[in-house]
Amino acid sequence: MEVSRGVFITIEGLDFSGKSTLVGILRERFEGSEPPTFFTREPGGTPAAERIRSLVLDPDIEMDDLTEAYLYAAARADHTRRQILPRLENGENVVCERYLDSSLAYQGVGRGLGLDAVRELNAKAVEAATPDKTFYLKLEPEEREQRAENRGSLDRLESVGEEFMRKVEGAFEELARREPDRIEVLDAMLAPEELARIVGGFLGEPRYTS
Amino acid sequence: MEVSRGVFITIEGLDFSGKSTLVGILRERFEGSEPPTFFTREPGGTPAAERIRSLVLDPDIEMDDLTEAYLYAAARADHTRRQILPRLENGENVVCERYLDSSLAYQGVGRGLGLDAVRELNAKAVEAATPDKTFYLKLEPEEREQRAENRGSLDRLESVGEEFMRKVEGAFEELARREPDRIEVLDAMLAPEELARIVGGFLGEPRYTS
Repeated sequence: MEVSRGVFITIEGLDFSGKSTLVGILRERFEGSEPPTFFTREPGGTPAAERIRSLVLDPDIEMDDLTEAYLYAAARADHTRRQILPRLENGENVVCERYLDSSLAYQGVGRGLGLDAVRELNAKAVEAATPDKTFYLKLEPEEREQRAENRGSLDRLESVGEEFMRKVEGAFEELARREPDRIEVLDAMLAPEELARIVGGFLGEPRYTS
Repeated sequence: MEVSRGVFITIEGLDFSGKSTLVGILRERFEGSEPPTFFTREPGGTPAAERIRSLVLDPDIEMDDLTEAYLYAAARADHTRRQILPRLENGENVVCERYLDSSLAYQGVGRGLGLDAVRELNAKAVEAATPDKTFYLKLEPEEREQRAENRGSLDRLESVGEEFMRKVEGAFEELARREPDRIEVLDAMLAPEELARIVGGFLGEPRYTS
């Protein structure tokens, strides 16, 4: 008997938009459910991808912006081919925090490499793994700053630079306008439980293929 | 006054073909010469690329073949943009042990990802840095085995697999047939000093651009 392919959901948004909190609630809610739902995040998810993660996030290593884009694609290729695709093909659902859209927004627009260049560079890495649905958590800059301050991480937010953040934010919104069927914009000010209800609703109706 | 761009030479060949010995002789011969000649090797050459090198060469980390190809491209992008291109543009010559052709042969043909796929994946990484000349050190399999045995590394050669080696070898030869003006096939059985004389002769006649 042929197994129906699972549903692939990605969660996108800038730092402090509540992605991890949302995923945490979903993880609890879907534990033990059928078909199984696998929760993961980028960059990471395999031994090689975790090593790449520690390299791209190491503040002591300077690298060219293009190198950074290649490293995210390398981690994504490993994660997609060794974890995400096998599970989807086995009928499991997959929820992934950050995916291709993050590279398009951060490296393509934020770093200025260009949307098309980053999309082409990632083409092989995401082959056969287009998300069925992507939820973008949209947060106003003032609220982001408030959340960063509450968590004692305002310096981390500020080190990235406000202009860079605005560019990344604009890119996510542009991507959502271009693909309204796939990308749903959610108000990150909603209660986490409400956000989890919306995203979980999509998981609760798995798509069956012939 | 505009500086003439330096000459970019790459040295290719399978393990035990004598690339490092050749580069060592050249390094000694061109030390202090004008314009300066910079000797380097892939993967590596920058802090990020060295970290990537230690990851791709780590026998304990299993990774997807495509991930490997992306990692080589990531290391190449950093090395090319932060070391090779600035030097060439500054009028220095660059001699690099292994470059794009190694990825085409090893990942494209050896691992079976396809020549075109690997070439596309590397397009941004090598932008503006096509070698002026590539020397391929061709060695018969029997001699390769003999050299590996002499250096107590026969197990390393055998672990790669004879079939894989033959595929990579065939790929280098096919690349040389396709680009006879750029890629010169050298008999790796020649004395290292003779090989250094041939390669150094090309360095001795730097190309001047307007």
